[in-house]
Amino acid sequence: MREDFNALAVIGATLEGGVNRVALSTEDWQARLWLADCIEAAGLALLDDAAANLGGVLRSPQPGARPLLIGSHLDSVPNGGRYDGSVGVLAALECLRVIREAGLALPVHLEMINFTDDEGTWHSLFGARALAGTLPPETTSSARVENTSFRAALGRVGLDLQDVPNASRDPHDLAGYLELHIEHGTRLETAGAKIGVVTNIVGRTTYEIVFHGQAGHSGTTDMYRRRDALRGAAQFITRAHDAMRARYGDGIFHCGDISVQPGKYNIIRSVARLVVEVRHISERLMAEMETAMTQIARECAAAHALTVDIQPRIHMPAATMAAGFMDAIEQSAAALSLPSMRLASYAGHAAQVLSKITPCGMIFIPSAGGIGHSPREYTAWDDVVAGAQTLLQAIVRLATQPG
Amino acid sequence: MREDFNALAVIGATLEGGVNRVALSTEDWQARLWLADCIEAAGLALLDDAAANLGGVLRSPQPGARPLLIGSHLDSVPNGGRYDGSVGVLAALECLRVIREAGLALPVHLEMINFTDDEGTWHSLFGARALAGTLPPETTSSARVENTSFRAALGRVGLDLQDVPNASRDPHDLAGYLELHIEHGTRLETAGAKIGVVTNIVGRTTYEIVFHGQAGHSGTTDMYRRRDALRGAAQFITRAHDAMRARYGDGIFHCGDISVQPGKYNIIRSVARLVVEVRHISERLMAEMETAMTQIARECAAAHALTVDIQPRIHMPAATMAAGFMDAIEQSAAALSLPSMRLASYAGHAAQVLSKITPCGMIFIPSAGGIGHSPREYTAWDDVVAGAQTLLQAIVRLATQPG
Repeated sequence: MREDFNALAVIGATLEGGVNRVALSTEDWQARLWLADCIEAAGLALLDDAAANLGGVLRSPQPGARPLLIGSHLDSVPNGGRYDGSVGVLAALECLRVIREAGLALPVHLEMINFTDDEGTWHSLFGARALAGTLPPETTSSARVENTSFRAALGRVGLDLQDVPNASRDPHDLAGYLELHIEHGTRLETAGAKIGVVTNIVGRTTYEIVFHGQAGHSGTTDMYRRRDALRGAAQFITRAHDAMRARYGDGIFHCGDISVQPGKYNIIRSVARLVVEVRHISERLMAEMETAMTQIARECAAAHALTVDIQPRIHMPAATMAAGFMDAIEQSAAALSLPSMRLASYAGHAAQVLSKITPCGMIFIPSAGGIGHSPREYTAWDDVVAGAQTLLQAIVRLATQPG
Repeated sequence: MREDFNALAVIGATLEGGVNRVALSTEDWQARLWLADCIEAAGLALLDDAAANLGGVLRSPQPGARPLLIGSHLDSVPNGGRYDGSVGVLAALECLRVIREAGLALPVHLEMINFTDDEGTWHSLFGARALAGTLPPETTSSARVENTSFRAALGRVGLDLQDVPNASRDPHDLAGYLELHIEHGTRLETAGAKIGVVTNIVGRTTYEIVFHGQAGHSGTTDMYRRRDALRGAAQFITRAHDAMRARYGDGIFHCGDISVQPGKYNIIRSVARLVVEVRHISERLMAEMETAMTQIARECAAAHALTVDIQPRIHMPAATMAAGFMDAIEQSAAALSLPSMRLASYAGHAAQVLSKITPCGMIFIPSAGGIGHSPREYTAWDDVVAGAQTLLQAIVRLATQPG
């Protein structure tokens, strides 16, 4: 597994020690070819689907067996790290290799899977959403993909837009989904735990909020008659942060983008455009946060004689992991004498969408300093191995437990 | 004069009814050629200086006479209006034409002048600052002007960078400066006055303020450990606006630009860069405002564990118009039965820098709805004529008054 890790880290390697392997890039394509070779070398049946998800199957001899999916993703964010996603794919491959070499006959098929575009170069969790059948039709409307070189990139990884809906699976034909991933946070490290048992995956809604005022000369316009879109937007950012912190301790509010128009700094800006995110592990509380945020935006607009346009852009639902999967992971860690803790994930993962169609579980391992989406991302190799061992045990427990 | 106005409005005319005649553009060059023809046709001596200020002189027969400058600017902001600047240049030309045709011998030379780059395409009030000798040396350092096509544009209007310092005039050789300009505000309109007697020109300091925090994943970074540069910047904008409104009723605080880095909306931004302006007619109170603003920026940075870098970029000092010039304008308006009022200018004008070397006066005429720097800029023609008549009377009063 360590050889695999080192070989993979070369593909898209950056000078800073990370990887640049964004979905559909040449590097992503190279990583896929390399993975396909590994799968075949491990004696697994190579499998890909209409969403270009790529995997390998270790078939069960038992009639009527259903596949337990085990996976993650090989794509990275731009200038990302070597652990995010990769660790989960390689551990899944290693587990199947070990189980096959041990001659262990399980009552489920084991299917390792590398999801297409998990990081959202094109569409966040594209492969997982295609498999779950939750990809909105406009996502793959060919009319919206006019860029020729982008269409060529889709074709290179085997994606035909019209064919993507065929990637969806019948929930009755699945035994579940299991993923090993780095935490992207410091909770395990702080608690001294080696294994995180994920309980929930945070939901996320992204909004575009545009304040509209009136342009004017920054010196001569009466201070009491200004309709300054930037001033209203700044008040909204400040008030929304304060209100969400005060009322929703477990929720996340983030304003991550702002741009103003027209003209230059000595013009009162008539347009201020924001992108904000709301995250919560409870769909109900997330909806409450969105209502509160909308109210604050309207109040800030009114206070500065502005109008405001509030448009939801992306909604990823909050998800709960299956109780049986959480127990299996916890018991496996205990059997290996690895300290574990239950925790929620504040980043999105494939299990978030797959939990709508099949029971899911996630294993987190520590990220040093909580650093993620960065070339400085690091997990001690012993921790990676501990995670892979927990994954192996959990697979066997889940495959053999009744129901 | 109306013929001149219509002919000039064609140069750089836009579909919206305004003009696009930014300094050093082809349109600015065409307007200069047209003006030079008008000056010669009016029987005035054509004059240009090392800053490409362009004018015409009606010489006094009196030995030792000094020039009274009368002018404004033909350049516009991008997509500007037909009145801003143009009205002042054309009225100056008309006054000299009338005085010459009337055969009036005055004890001062009358010099009409079109200042180069008043609007600051390159440098705000470039021509006026060159004449006043207050252009910082780095402004015309050729090392900083590396753009070949820009150098060609400079050459086309007759600018040789090394020669610009020669445009400065000896204060002892000037009798004063007088300008007619649209108000860019609604105070005259609201008061029902036709003539504004400018008392002060507001000073302005522009700052670049950069908040520095730490980039991170917008979902997984602990909400209590975020160092979000955009959040700190938003709080600064809100608090600075509120504090300046509460404490400095006559002052202007404006934040007109914001940009964030790095990455995209789902990254906590580590850099937020603002451009802000502080304006006041009192240099002392402006300095107080700057101190208060700096303090607020430091407090907002501290509240979000950020650092902040505050750099002044442009300082235009506040200016006071000469008492004798204000009286002459007021008396001229009264003689013409035009209701007048005294008021401060919240926009920058050439008199702001020229008042450091010679007595200055400014006449404002109403701008409909206060609209300025816009194709919708409009002043009723009767108001333009009233302004030109007041200018003519004021020139004669100032030229003939003792001292």
